[in-house]
Amino acid sequence: MKKPDLNIAMAQLNVKVGDLAGNQRLILDAIQEARNEHIDVLVFTELAVCGYPPEDLLFHQQFLDDCYNCVKQIADHTDGLVVILGFPRNHPNEPELLHNSAALIQDGEIKMIYDKQKLPNYLVFDEKRYFTSGSHDGIAELTINKQTYSIGVTICEDIWYEAEPVVYQAQQGVDLLINISASPYAAGKIESRIAMLQRRAKRFSTPLIYCNLVGGQDELIFDGTSCAIDAAGELKALAPSFDAAFTTINFSQPQTQITEPNSPLAELYDAVVSCTRDYFQKNGFTKAVLGLSGGIDSALTAVIAADAIGAENVTGVLMPSKYSSDHSVTDAQILADTLGLPSHVVPIKPMHQSFHKFLEPLFNEFYDDYFHRQTDENIQARIRGVLLMAFSNNSNAILLCTSNKSETSVGYTTLYGDMAGGFAPIKDLFKLQVYALAEYRNSIDPAGPVIPLNTITKPPSAELRPDQKDSDSLPEYEVLDEILKAYLHQHKDAAQIAKALNQDIELVIKVLKMIDRNEYKRQQAAPGPRVTQMAFGKDRRMPITNGFKHQQ
Amino acid sequence: MKKPDLNIAMAQLNVKVGDLAGNQRLILDAIQEARNEHIDVLVFTELAVCGYPPEDLLFHQQFLDDCYNCVKQIADHTDGLVVILGFPRNHPNEPELLHNSAALIQDGEIKMIYDKQKLPNYLVFDEKRYFTSGSHDGIAELTINKQTYSIGVTICEDIWYEAEPVVYQAQQGVDLLINISASPYAAGKIESRIAMLQRRAKRFSTPLIYCNLVGGQDELIFDGTSCAIDAAGELKALAPSFDAAFTTINFSQPQTQITEPNSPLAELYDAVVSCTRDYFQKNGFTKAVLGLSGGIDSALTAVIAADAIGAENVTGVLMPSKYSSDHSVTDAQILADTLGLPSHVVPIKPMHQSFHKFLEPLFNEFYDDYFHRQTDENIQARIRGVLLMAFSNNSNAILLCTSNKSETSVGYTTLYGDMAGGFAPIKDLFKLQVYALAEYRNSIDPAGPVIPLNTITKPPSAELRPDQKDSDSLPEYEVLDEILKAYLHQHKDAAQIAKALNQDIELVIKVLKMIDRNEYKRQQAAPGPRVTQMAFGKDRRMPITNGFKHQQ
Repeated sequence: MKKPDLNIAMAQLNVKVGDLAGNQRLILDAIQEARNEHIDVLVFTELAVCGYPPEDLLFHQQFLDDCYNCVKQIADHTDGLVVILGFPRNHPNEPELLHNSAALIQDGEIKMIYDKQKLPNYLVFDEKRYFTSGSHDGIAELTINKQTYSIGVTICEDIWYEAEPVVYQAQQGVDLLINISASPYAAGKIESRIAMLQRRAKRFSTPLIYCNLVGGQDELIFDGTSCAIDAAGELKALAPSFDAAFTTINFSQPQTQITEPNSPLAELYDAVVSCTRDYFQKNGFTKAVLGLSGGIDSALTAVIAADAIGAENVTGVLMPSKYSSDHSVTDAQILADTLGLPSHVVPIKPMHQSFHKFLEPLFNEFYDDYFHRQTDENIQARIRGVLLMAFSNNSNAILLCTSNKSETSVGYTTLYGDMAGGFAPIKDLFKLQVYALAEYRNSIDPAGPVIPLNTITKPPSAELRPDQKDSDSLPEYEVLDEILKAYLHQHKDAAQIAKALNQDIELVIKVLKMIDRNEYKRQQAAPGPRVTQMAFGKDRRMPITNGFKHQQ
Repeated sequence: MKKPDLNIAMAQLNVKVGDLAGNQRLILDAIQEARNEHIDVLVFTELAVCGYPPEDLLFHQQFLDDCYNCVKQIADHTDGLVVILGFPRNHPNEPELLHNSAALIQDGEIKMIYDKQKLPNYLVFDEKRYFTSGSHDGIAELTINKQTYSIGVTICEDIWYEAEPVVYQAQQGVDLLINISASPYAAGKIESRIAMLQRRAKRFSTPLIYCNLVGGQDELIFDGTSCAIDAAGELKALAPSFDAAFTTINFSQPQTQITEPNSPLAELYDAVVSCTRDYFQKNGFTKAVLGLSGGIDSALTAVIAADAIGAENVTGVLMPSKYSSDHSVTDAQILADTLGLPSHVVPIKPMHQSFHKFLEPLFNEFYDDYFHRQTDENIQARIRGVLLMAFSNNSNAILLCTSNKSETSVGYTTLYGDMAGGFAPIKDLFKLQVYALAEYRNSIDPAGPVIPLNTITKPPSAELRPDQKDSDSLPEYEVLDEILKAYLHQHKDAAQIAKALNQDIELVIKVLKMIDRNEYKRQQAAPGPRVTQMAFGKDRRMPITNGFKHQQ
């Protein structure tokens, strides 16, 4: 087995899409650190220069030119180092074609440019919209410390296939495989990704360096978790998840640098918090505001926000209506006090009455119709939206939307009401996951539970009419969440779902129709952390106008 | 030159995505009509069975199975006919791969299945997300009326390239090229598309049948405008735009069936109206509501809605604030009366006061801060949003958003306020196009202008504070619209734009920054008719978190 005697560092940096100057500073800092630590080979991530995914910024030639200038400026700082760095580039002969590329730079000189071959165009990925596959084999012969090494470079998706270009590189007997990635997080993916990488290294009997982007970018979470695996498939270095890190490895040395993996709930919680924090930081916001209803969704959202940007920066607004129970206000106030959130109480009754006063006669007179219950429920939710957005506007705070995936799926939400907000931290969490994370977060706080027990144990209710409960309109969440997963994540049809879950087919079809019918709401929803491989947003692209009928 | 003696019909049907049973009925009706008219070859459009684009419905196997069953049931009705019909299918050997296919059916038998080769994956198109390119040459040898014909079938994008598979079909000397399409409308595209088709037919000296989908599907408008072109490149048949049609041609006969093309403004107006009508009809709505401000945007939106679904189904709500000028209410009322819209006046002052009463002390006390002007402006806009959504909820009407592309670009809109709505008819029209269409619509009404002259001539204003004018915050629209086009449509950089338009670079950069910064609002915007090749929505995919700096 080959054990290259090289000091290698994996720099998983939290770069920001489009911020070329800021990213260049982070990259140059890592180069300085590499020099301090006598590193030979310094590996950055996919499209490190510009962040991932740059989306349609790639159609601006100025952006591409600026990216290339960054690479050249960074190259000027690589004396005594080998640096591998991702950037987008125009094809040298056909400039209307773009490549997703890796520059291998040594001592100030670009020695090789490898262009990604496998371009993902599924789930959230649109790489065939932008890029053309490359044809370079990605193998560079380098002299480092007077030794000659053969290194095979690939980019992200390339390594997910036991195929070209990696198979060819291995057959050529490279001493080291290096993959630079921007692989977004989903629950369970870290473990399966590392196992895949271990299979590759072992299969090819070649040590493997995998350097993965870290940080939140709109809905996407890049977990980092870069790793080094030896030729036997053994994990020799593992960087932390959800944090920028500079992780070193020398395959010829016995020492290893391995971060202990998180429990699944800790990982999920950290993912959501890190994405929320980055959305604020990268968009230049320090403050958040949200409505506290006393329910579990707003409670968990508040705790996530407090962990992301500091409790003192999160304002909670309690907006009881005439249908709010006493415990709603109490539970919400206890949460705010325990967490240390600034909070205010603004009862909505006066606004509610002023809308009613003018609308009720109109509806009665002109439409020969009563004031519908749903109209009235929505007015309450939307008055809260107006109040919260006023707090948001007046204090330059982002309004957090508290909708979870279960209610967003079936449209059990009010557009411009509780759906209002700039960011929705629990958007991709089913209701039962919301409970699980609330209990997890309560379990780890040294000062004791922050979310009141009553918030966790009482039956969920929107409290928009007397004695309302979620279960009046929806199946129990134990059933609902399973139907949602089968339909949204696994694309099962109604009959398959009814059979697999032993549920009535009419109930299943009722739920699927609710999902289909509420696509129009979801297309106006706030972004939020993606923690599955089928979040609403770029993963799931469904028509609003959709006549498909579910069969019995 | 070859002149096949065949009675050919192009059935451009307004099918609906996912509505397999409804689409099948339309297709069988067309088959009946073909039989009545002694048609030999009946051509439908791309994915006619399921509508276009089906998006992620394609990931549901039940959907694919149902599509195939439709094709088989339709085939049972093709005695004495050749039918060409688009549908999605699983690859026969590798069922995890999908094709965008055309079935050539004769006398109840599927004689050939051709799979699309060129898969568009740019602008609004994501076909590489779903489909794999086919390899069949698309040539069928058929006996019709005891004559043998060779026919080359292709699908949409295939014909846009003077390349395979069309070049091969022509080289094989087919008697007829048939292309089935779902080519979405953009202003100016109809003319250039027909010119392209004429070049193809002439270059290959082969007659060409082009059958294109018609109707609105969410944001997309399919214009139809199917055509037949002879081997000399001459247009022999042209179907109408924006209407379902059954258009016949026999290349061996002298008679032609050519619909006169529209003027550019008429075409644009009809496009927007047809898309608006289909959004209502296909989603099961008959009624609309919108706010009438007395301004040009709400006036044009109201007229479009009235033309789409009937004035009696469009409710206008006048919601003056303390900053509204007298002419606002007068102009809005004249419009409603002239058009025949039911209308109501709901002054927002009482609601505005009730929000102020509770928020002002809070903001003053807790934030040591005044009540920001923008906060106050937004509260007014959002109170209108709440009122309009109450009308929408209570009468099952879709709220129309009246935002145009100029203000949406720079974020001169209020999220959950004037941005609220289920559909935004003028979303992809720049402000100067709004004026042009208003004047066009006024010019064609036999009863005289419907939009008051004052609405067209007065300076645009949001009227959210005293004497406010759009030009206080924005460049004049003559300048703004040109900057927007250069940046959004042509991807020019700031320096190029400043030079080309002879404008100050600081002004240009200010506008580009406004565009970038307001991406978060656009991602929560209502859908609306796409009339350019770079609408907000699926055409333009930009990050919200975006640190790109425009250079001087």
